[in-house]
Amino acid sequence: MPAVSPLAPKSFPNLPAIDGVAFATAEAGIKYRDRRDVLLAVFDKGATVAGVFTQSKCPSAPVEWCKAALKAGRARALLVNSGNANAFTGKRGKEATRASAAMVADLLGCKPKDVFLASTGVIGEPLDPQKFAAVLGKTVKRAASGPWLDAASAIMTTDTYPKGATRRVQIGDATVTINGIAKGAGMIAPDMATLLAFVFTDAALPASVLQALLAKGVRASFNAITVDGDTSTSDTLLMFATGAAGNPKIGDAGDKRLRAFRAALDDLLRDLAHQVVRDGEGARKFVEIRIAGATSKNSARRIAISIANSPLVKTAIAGEDANWGRVVMAVGKAGEPADRDRLSIFFGDIRVAANGERDPDYSEAAASVYMKNEHIVITVDLGIGKGRDTVWTCDLTKEYVAINGDYRS
Amino acid sequence: MPAVSPLAPKSFPNLPAIDGVAFATAEAGIKYRDRRDVLLAVFDKGATVAGVFTQSKCPSAPVEWCKAALKAGRARALLVNSGNANAFTGKRGKEATRASAAMVADLLGCKPKDVFLASTGVIGEPLDPQKFAAVLGKTVKRAASGPWLDAASAIMTTDTYPKGATRRVQIGDATVTINGIAKGAGMIAPDMATLLAFVFTDAALPASVLQALLAKGVRASFNAITVDGDTSTSDTLLMFATGAAGNPKIGDAGDKRLRAFRAALDDLLRDLAHQVVRDGEGARKFVEIRIAGATSKNSARRIAISIANSPLVKTAIAGEDANWGRVVMAVGKAGEPADRDRLSIFFGDIRVAANGERDPDYSEAAASVYMKNEHIVITVDLGIGKGRDTVWTCDLTKEYVAINGDYRS
Repeated sequence: MPAVSPLAPKSFPNLPAIDGVAFATAEAGIKYRDRRDVLLAVFDKGATVAGVFTQSKCPSAPVEWCKAALKAGRARALLVNSGNANAFTGKRGKEATRASAAMVADLLGCKPKDVFLASTGVIGEPLDPQKFAAVLGKTVKRAASGPWLDAASAIMTTDTYPKGATRRVQIGDATVTINGIAKGAGMIAPDMATLLAFVFTDAALPASVLQALLAKGVRASFNAITVDGDTSTSDTLLMFATGAAGNPKIGDAGDKRLRAFRAALDDLLRDLAHQVVRDGEGARKFVEIRIAGATSKNSARRIAISIANSPLVKTAIAGEDANWGRVVMAVGKAGEPADRDRLSIFFGDIRVAANGERDPDYSEAAASVYMKNEHIVITVDLGIGKGRDTVWTCDLTKEYVAINGDYRS
Repeated sequence: MPAVSPLAPKSFPNLPAIDGVAFATAEAGIKYRDRRDVLLAVFDKGATVAGVFTQSKCPSAPVEWCKAALKAGRARALLVNSGNANAFTGKRGKEATRASAAMVADLLGCKPKDVFLASTGVIGEPLDPQKFAAVLGKTVKRAASGPWLDAASAIMTTDTYPKGATRRVQIGDATVTINGIAKGAGMIAPDMATLLAFVFTDAALPASVLQALLAKGVRASFNAITVDGDTSTSDTLLMFATGAAGNPKIGDAGDKRLRAFRAALDDLLRDLAHQVVRDGEGARKFVEIRIAGATSKNSARRIAISIANSPLVKTAIAGEDANWGRVVMAVGKAGEPADRDRLSIFFGDIRVAANGERDPDYSEAAASVYMKNEHIVITVDLGIGKGRDTVWTCDLTKEYVAINGDYRS
């Protein structure tokens, strides 16, 4: 077992119960020994659901299942396992999703399509649904409103700590709670890690509103992080709303009464996404890449991602080297509009380059001191427009290579 | 000094003299001590030139100089230095290119635009043209037809060995020679490495033909390799033809009489490109990624590059792990047309996956033995079209991280 990431939060937050959500975990022995590897969450009737998934052209069987199930917008259960991703498993993979959903549906008396599935772990290995059959009956009976730490722990793979977040806000007169759990340590390491996140709320919101909020919220959170630029076959973000809070009926995601909820959801998603980066394989630094002055927000995003995914930028940060030349390189390779002679680059508040050359006032000694921080902010102002965006990543260390290369699967 | 790459060729090949090309190297003390860091090549009047450059939006001053100079298609000299890339140096960088070209032009009695420039090394550091002034007079007097090993050595930065290749073919009744030298160890490490390659021939070919041949030849050579996916601000490939071989006049790159020349040039470019990959920072394995069955050649290229740049694929190869799940991931993230259930994947001749799942006959023991080879071939057949392409890369080791992260610039 790897030690806990040095960038980990001090403790798992205290997640309250959510009315209408009950869950339990189980030890199904899918791959790990002596570890709970199954999470079953059950929702009261009437719960709505939204989801965002990997863009991979080779998605896992559970991703395809969820995409189809999502059309009705209703959910009664979520079944998650770690240890096997049920990805690249052909017809048997599809069969396994059908069988698993049917088992849960039988227990709850609902339709299989009301059951959502997520799997993470080794890929290319058939997932035997009988593993679920052996534990589901007892698990559903144990379902309760906590503890959330168990849920966050059961879905871990190479994660070094469980990830959770909670927020509480008003919608009209009603107080609503949002809880979220996540796992992920590389954007992907197909036989070890992937990104799964589940958000639960007692707000009463139609699936269409939930979907709009989630699609928007993911842009500045899970879509704005990268560990290694590798995209999982299994990335899954699902959000479930039970409606138990009894807030006023809302039919439009842009409704003013949702302002606090939107902000809280965005904040919770960003919190969870940061926790994933902080558990990046081998990470020693949490790195924020801010772009300003690009021709558009999308252009700023592409430049930020180019910097965040550059092995040379990431190794320089690991070496505590304020190597802004590599930042220039990564801006240049992004292929986005840029004018070399209008670029400026900052490490923290230290301007290292401006107007197409090294800042004459730049103190290398000060920059060296700054690079020793655990949280590094690199800002690039392109000076040609108003587009701005931010992404988060981690450094690239020998431990990343060790974790991903020093073993035989 | 790093040890010579374990993937290096046994020796530098024997490059013959090229009629109409004379060169010499010098110690200008640009950055390195006790090392020749300048190469000056002089061409007889009438030499033609073609070039291909980095796609970076933040190119170096010499790249901009060469792009402009290339328009006339004539060359009298090439001046290359290592130790300073003259990149991101603002107006001073532009001034330095003008001054350097003028110095060489004065010595040779030609126009500054007939002088081609390339610089590699640290970026953001002003390049003082007076360093050239101190050595150029003596250097031009020493210019001779060899030895090419000196030329290849003077342009090195983090390279662990000098890179050269030679071919000899007929154009009509005339025997022509093509020599090439190159440097590069990462696709880039802006303050250490970049890709420079220079090709010299005594063939008589107009600049337009030369340009067409070079642009085509680069596709399956320098544009088909990647070490870390990072693109230099300074990548430069120039080809000079003196015409001394006296071959029949040819006005079209598609001329049948050029068939052998085209093949030899393509082969020489690929040879040099492979030598760059074999010197990839920290490389222990030379990796060939072959794609077949894609919807087009361009789609095959993008899928191949996605695999070749995946940190997870590259670390798995470093760990001698036949981790085909990561290959599936990299195909999926390429965003190109792919049908998971028609994919097949081979490590060498061993089919590990087919029809969307693990090959039932796949022997993990055999795959493990194969992965111990120094030259690894990964083949992906997408099974949906006729597009095929090949790229070359190396593994990602802890030494890459050490070379690029374990120092302070």
